[in-house]
Amino acid sequence: MAEKPDDKKITPRGQDFAAWYNDLVLRAELADYSPVRGCIVFRPDGFAIWEALRDELDRRIKRTGARNAYFPLFIPQSFLQKEAQHVEGFAPEVAVVTHGGGKELEEPLIVRPTSETIINHMFAQWIHSHRDLPLMINQWCNVVRWEMRTRIFLRTAEFLWQEGHTAHATREEAERETLTMLEVYRNFAEEFLAIPIAAGRKSAAERFPGAEETYTIESLMGDGRALQCGTSHFLGQNFSRAFEIRFLDEGNVMQHPWQTSWGVSTRLLGAIVMAHGDDQGLRLPPAVASTQVVVVPIWRKADEGDRVLTAARTAMQALENAGLRAKLDERDGVTPGFKFNDWEMRGVPLRVEIGPRDVAAGEVVMARRDILGPAGKSKVAINEVAARAAVLLSEIQKNLLAQARAAMDANTLRPSNYDQLQTQMAGEGGGGFADIYWCGRAECETRIRDETRATCRAIPLDQSHPPDRCIVCAEPAPERALFAKAY
Amino acid sequence: MAEKPDDKKITPRGQDFAAWYNDLVLRAELADYSPVRGCIVFRPDGFAIWEALRDELDRRIKRTGARNAYFPLFIPQSFLQKEAQHVEGFAPEVAVVTHGGGKELEEPLIVRPTSETIINHMFAQWIHSHRDLPLMINQWCNVVRWEMRTRIFLRTAEFLWQEGHTAHATREEAERETLTMLEVYRNFAEEFLAIPIAAGRKSAAERFPGAEETYTIESLMGDGRALQCGTSHFLGQNFSRAFEIRFLDEGNVMQHPWQTSWGVSTRLLGAIVMAHGDDQGLRLPPAVASTQVVVVPIWRKADEGDRVLTAARTAMQALENAGLRAKLDERDGVTPGFKFNDWEMRGVPLRVEIGPRDVAAGEVVMARRDILGPAGKSKVAINEVAARAAVLLSEIQKNLLAQARAAMDANTLRPSNYDQLQTQMAGEGGGGFADIYWCGRAECETRIRDETRATCRAIPLDQSHPPDRCIVCAEPAPERALFAKAY
Repeated sequence: MAEKPDDKKITPRGQDFAAWYNDLVLRAELADYSPVRGCIVFRPDGFAIWEALRDELDRRIKRTGARNAYFPLFIPQSFLQKEAQHVEGFAPEVAVVTHGGGKELEEPLIVRPTSETIINHMFAQWIHSHRDLPLMINQWCNVVRWEMRTRIFLRTAEFLWQEGHTAHATREEAERETLTMLEVYRNFAEEFLAIPIAAGRKSAAERFPGAEETYTIESLMGDGRALQCGTSHFLGQNFSRAFEIRFLDEGNVMQHPWQTSWGVSTRLLGAIVMAHGDDQGLRLPPAVASTQVVVVPIWRKADEGDRVLTAARTAMQALENAGLRAKLDERDGVTPGFKFNDWEMRGVPLRVEIGPRDVAAGEVVMARRDILGPAGKSKVAINEVAARAAVLLSEIQKNLLAQARAAMDANTLRPSNYDQLQTQMAGEGGGGFADIYWCGRAECETRIRDETRATCRAIPLDQSHPPDRCIVCAEPAPERALFAKAY
Repeated sequence: MAEKPDDKKITPRGQDFAAWYNDLVLRAELADYSPVRGCIVFRPDGFAIWEALRDELDRRIKRTGARNAYFPLFIPQSFLQKEAQHVEGFAPEVAVVTHGGGKELEEPLIVRPTSETIINHMFAQWIHSHRDLPLMINQWCNVVRWEMRTRIFLRTAEFLWQEGHTAHATREEAERETLTMLEVYRNFAEEFLAIPIAAGRKSAAERFPGAEETYTIESLMGDGRALQCGTSHFLGQNFSRAFEIRFLDEGNVMQHPWQTSWGVSTRLLGAIVMAHGDDQGLRLPPAVASTQVVVVPIWRKADEGDRVLTAARTAMQALENAGLRAKLDERDGVTPGFKFNDWEMRGVPLRVEIGPRDVAAGEVVMARRDILGPAGKSKVAINEVAARAAVLLSEIQKNLLAQARAAMDANTLRPSNYDQLQTQMAGEGGGGFADIYWCGRAECETRIRDETRATCRAIPLDQSHPPDRCIVCAEPAPERALFAKAY
C-alpha cells in the first residue's frame, strides 16, 4: 500500500479534467472498475463518504415526516407500461430478468430503474381514506439503468440512491412537499457537502418521465460543467390514476391522491470530488470526511521518536475525546513528506505535524487542506489541539463552500445576445452557467442545445427581475433560465 | 387506519403457529406481500426494526476492524463456476439477467445470491503483499435466491443482509476471525434481540457451499422449531485459489490468503416475531422497538381532557428528553381499551396510562408488555416517569431474553435412545432441540432426517462431557450435537 501513491501521477486538472477525475478517484481508493459492464465497486474510503452523507440526509428526511421502507428489486414488466411517459423514458435502459430457479419466467421482471410503479401499486392497497394521507415513504436502495456511456459515480449502470414517494389529499399539499424536499436537498448540499446550489424548475424537455413538474438542484463543477445533484418531482395524479389509487375525502368523495417523488444518488460522490478537488487531490468537506484530522509524527533519531510519538498519541487522544475523526499515521519506512502528500491526495481536511522541536516547545503545527502552503499553517499549544481543530474544521467546511460559490459566481455569466452565449459555450470544456432570458419554447431550447451543447439546467424560482426578450428569438421572455453544458 | 385492528382476528398461536405468524406480521404492518413472486415489502414499522438492528450490528462489525464497501449487484455467470461446490449450491436458485438496454447480453448476468465470487475477483486486484492483509470488508445489500417455498422474512426470493468477507495471511488468523464473528453474532442476538442462542459448528451436510467449516447461531422459536439466525464460514483457501488471490508473505514467498465470510439477514425480523410474540401480538425488545413507550391519555368529559392531555404531554416530553423513543396516542374516536390492544399487538414494550384521577394524584400507571395484567402494572409519580421507564425498559429487555431462554431450555431434551428421539420429534409442530450423541457419520444424520425430519442444527463448541455412543448406530460418538426440525 505504502508505495502506491508514487506508482502513477495524477493528471493535472487543467490539462484534462476527465483524466484528472478518474486518476483521483482510483488513486484515492474511492472506487474501482468492476468486471461487470458499467458497474463500479465502492471501496471503503468512498463508501464511508456515502455513509456519512446518507446518515445525515436520512435524519433530515425523517424530520420531514417520511419513514423508510423497502420494496422489491424486481418490477413486473407490465407495471412499467401503465404510465405512458414513464415507460417511454425508462424502457430503453432497463435490465431484464428472464430466468429464475432454472426456468424461464412467465412474465419478465425489470430490475428497478426507479420505483414509482411498484410503490404506487402498494399505495393502492394501503390508501383508502383521507386518514391514510399523507403517506410519506423513503427508500434507500440500488437501481439499474443500462446507460451507454458510463462514468464513475456520475453515470453507472447500477447506483445507490434514496427515492422518496409521497401521496397527499390535495394538489397544494403535494406541491408544497415537492418544494420542501427541494429545499431539504439544497440546504443539505450546501451545509453538509459544501456544494453551492442553483435550484429551480426543469424545462418540459428535461422533466422526469411521468412528472408534471420537475425541480432540481444544480451545481457547477471545477471544469465549468453543470451537474444535476438531485431532483424533486410533482407527479400530479399521473401515477395515482395509472395505479388506481383512490381515497374517500372528508366530504365522502372518491379522489385520486396527488403525489411527489424525489431522490439523490451516489452521483453526489462525484460532485464532491469535482466541486472541491485540486491538483493535489481530493478536498473533503469535514462533515463527510471519514478522517477529519491526520496526525503525522516527524523524527529522525530513535530517541526523538519516543518523545514525538508520545506527544502525537496525546494529541490523537484529545482529538478523539472531542468527538473528531482522527488518525495517527505511524507508518515506518515512508518520509513525512510522502505522508503529507498522501493525506493531501486523500483529501483529509486538517493535518497535525509534530516534530522534536514542537514537542520541546509544547506546540504542534496545523495545516489546512483548503489553504495550501504557509498561509494555511498555524502553531497551536499541544493542549489546545482539539479545541483548535474543531474551530478550524468548521472554518474549512465554510471556506470550501465559499470557494466553490466564488467559482460558481465567477462562471455564471449573463450573455446579452446569442453571439455572446455561443462564445461562452465555445470550446471543449464547460462554459459555466449562462443566465439568460428564454421564451420557454422548445424550439429555442433545441437550437441552443444543437448549436452550443448547453441545455436548460434550471429555471430559478426567484424571478425578481422584469420580463425581457428571449436571447434566441427575441420574443417576450417572462423568465430567466440557467443554461450550461452538463454531465 | 383506526378500525383496522378489528377487521380480522389474529389466529391463536397455539392453534396454528404459521397462521398466527402471518396474521401478526401483516396486522402489525411489519410487511406485506408484493406482486412479485417470493418478494415482500418491508413496511415502515418492520423496516424500523431492521434499521435499529442494522445500525447496532454495523457498529459492532466496525469495531472488529471491518469496513463497509459496495460491490455490483450483477455477477458474470462464469464467476459462479469457478468454485465447484459454490456453483453446485447456488446455480439452481439464481435469477438471470439476459437483456440490458434492449439487447441480449453476450454473457448472462446472475443477480447476486451471495458475493464471494465478485468480491474475491476484486480482492485479487487489491491484495499483493502481506501488508495488504488482513483485508476485512463488509457489505449491506440485497441478494436474490429463487426459493420454491417462501415465507415472510424467513425465506424470500429477495432479502436484505450483511455479508462480511475477509482475507488473512494465516490459517490460524482466519479461523480466529470466523469464531470472532460467531461470537459477535451470538452476543448481538442475545443482548440486542433478546434471542437466546445455541452456537456451534455445522455438519458437513449443512455447510455453506465452498466453505471448509460453517459455524452457526441457532435459536428455538415459539413452536419448538429451530431457526438459523446467522452463519460464519471458514473458507480455507478455496476461493483464494479459485480467484487466484496471491500475496508475498514476510519471507518473500507467494501464498494464497485464508478467508472467511459471515452474514445475517432480514430473517432476524422473523426470529424476533417468533421468539417473543404471543396471542396478543408482537413483543418487541426495547432495543429494537421504534416506539419504546406509548402514552395513552384516558378521559370522558371535555374538561378532564385538557388536564389529562397536558399531563400526558408533560410525560411525553420527559420521556423524549431522556432519549427514549416515545409516542403519544392522541387519537379521537377510539376507546382507551382499543388503544391498549392496538399497541400490545404492535409490541410496544411499555405503556403509560394517564386518567383524571392519576392527574389529581400526580401519578401515572405503567404497564409492561412482557408481563400482562395487574402483575405488570405499577404506579409512578409523574415526575419520575422517564427515570422509571428507563429502568423498566432495561428490565423488559432482560426479561424477554430470560423468558425465551427458559422456553429454549425447557424444549431442549436429551433423549437417551433413538425411540425417545422419535417420540420427541413426532407430530406436526416442532419438537425442540434434541441434544444427542452422534457419531458424525452422514448415514446416521440422514436416517434421523428421513425418519424424524430433524436435522443437525449445531455441534456445540463446548464439549465438556465424556464421549459416548451414537444414538442411532451405537458406534463411538466423540461429540454431542443439537438436532431439531428447522425453518
